[in-house]
Parts: sequence; structure tokens; C-alpha cells
Amino acid sequence: MTGRTTLTICRTCRPEGAPSEGEPPGAALGRAAHAIVARRALEGRIETRAIACLSACSRSCAASVSAPGKFAYVIGGLDPSDADALVTFALRHAEAVDGVPPWRERPEKIRKNTVARVPPPGAEHALLEEIAEEIAVNPDR
Amino acid sequence: MTGRTTLTICRTCRPEGAPSEGEPPGAALGRAAHAIVARRALEGRIETRAIACLSACSRSCAASVSAPGKFAYVIGGLDPSDADALVTFALRHAEAVDGVPPWRERPEKIRKNTVARVPPPGAEHALLEEIAEEIAVNPDR
Repeated sequence: MTGRTTLTICRTCRPEGAPSEGEPPGAALGRAAHAIVARRALEGRIETRAIACLSACSRSCAASVSAPGKFAYVIGGLDPSDADALVTFALRHAEAVDGVPPWRERPEKIRKNTVARVPPPGAEHALLEEIAEEIAVNPDR
Repeated sequence: MTGRTTLTICRTCRPEGAPSEGEPPGAALGRAAHAIVARRALEGRIETRAIACLSACSRSCAASVSAPGKFAYVIGGLDPSDADALVTFALRHAEAVDGVPPWRERPEKIRKNTVARVPPPGAEHALLEEIAEEIAVNPDR
């Protein structure tokens, strides 16, 4: 129990091959995830919201999980049937102190469709390092 | 002048086709960006750091820009010669109140290689919407 995670789903995502008419699969995914959060009474752990675009169109449907001071993740290649996996991942993210859920606890669909992660700005973390100046080694830079 | 942006560069990124030996191009990109920040005395606006992986390996070299309460961006398809474009984008990110730099002010290389953006958790923004329950419309969900 280490905080609330924001799950943001692109509501305009329409993967290649999806019908060009009707509700975008991204919007359906968002509604499905929202309904699961409500049914499981997870509102205290997961905030769901929609966005017009996550700039990950080539990997649609896309969604992000984020929380202050934690690693954020962008997941792509989703369809509305992946709402359960997405909510499970958001819950694991909420439980992880640094926002990095243990690999084995991530649903397979999420593992295979992680687009990127973003480290928390300004924070220290074992994964992060300072960049040495190395000016003496590279005098021409 | 609206805050400091964290620019995180993957130091292990080695794009397809790059030599399998020697310093990874990601590490060289990080050093080059760090050197530009130092030369232009931008340390007050941009913090540079390295990470072992941004989980964006299929789009390497990859980097992220982020700041508390702002949209974060992941950029891919970079090589060490893109350090200038990356630092310029980080500066535009630092200047943007919400972390969304005006499209025309983003270097072309960055525009064409944006992997994803992540909205700030918990924040309000014109791009973000609540997801309606719509339980009456979808009683089976």
C-alpha cells in the first residue's frame, strides 16, 4: 500500500486493421478499465482517466501508469480485452515503492508490450547515474 | 523560466547496425548532451543523467525528459550527433509550464522520433478527461 497510481488511456487509439468507424478501441479499453476499477473498488489505488493522444500512435492502443516520485510506464499494443491485465499492472505499480513492479508480477501482455519507462525527475535510484564530464579525456567536446 | 528538466539518456542503447564492441552509442549521446549542457551553462535548467535501460530498446538510442507536475516525453531513434537537438528539446520542455513544448519549437529530429508522452499524475490538464461510468449503457461490464 504505497500510494495511488494514475492510469491514463488514449481514447482515440485505433490500431491498424481496426474498423475506421465507431468507437475507437482505445475508448473502449478506457471504459473497460474504468469499470474494472469500479467493480473491484480500487479507486483508492488507481485513478483512471482518458487522454486524446499519448503520442504513441504506432503502438496503439496505448496507456500510461504514473505516480509522483515513481517510474512511469507506457504500454502499447493493447485492445479492449486487455483491460484486466492493464489494471493488474497499475495495481502492481501502485504497490511498488519506486514504481518498478517485479518482472514476474507483470502480466505477460504488459511485459511484451512495454513501450518505455520514464524515471522520476530529480529522484535518486539505483538505476540512475551521474554522467561524468570526462573533459580531459575528450578535450574536443 | 519555469523549472528544471531532467534529461535521462540510456547509456546501454546500441541501435541495430551499430558495432557490437566499444562504447555504446547511447553512452556517447549522454556524454555529448552532458558536455553541451556544461558548455552552455544550462545546469540550472537541465539535469543530465544516465540510466541502464529505458525499456525502449526497439527504438534506441532513447532518452526521456521529465519534470515534476509536467508531461514527460520519451524520444527514440537518436544517435550521438543528435545531442544538440535533444538538449534544445529539453530546454523547450523546461520553459513549457505544462511540459508540452509548442510543436514548431521542437527540433525536427525530435518531432519525428517521439516514442510517447506521459501526462503528469494527478494533475488537471486540458488534454485529460474523466472516464464516465456509463454503467447504464453497458450493464454487462
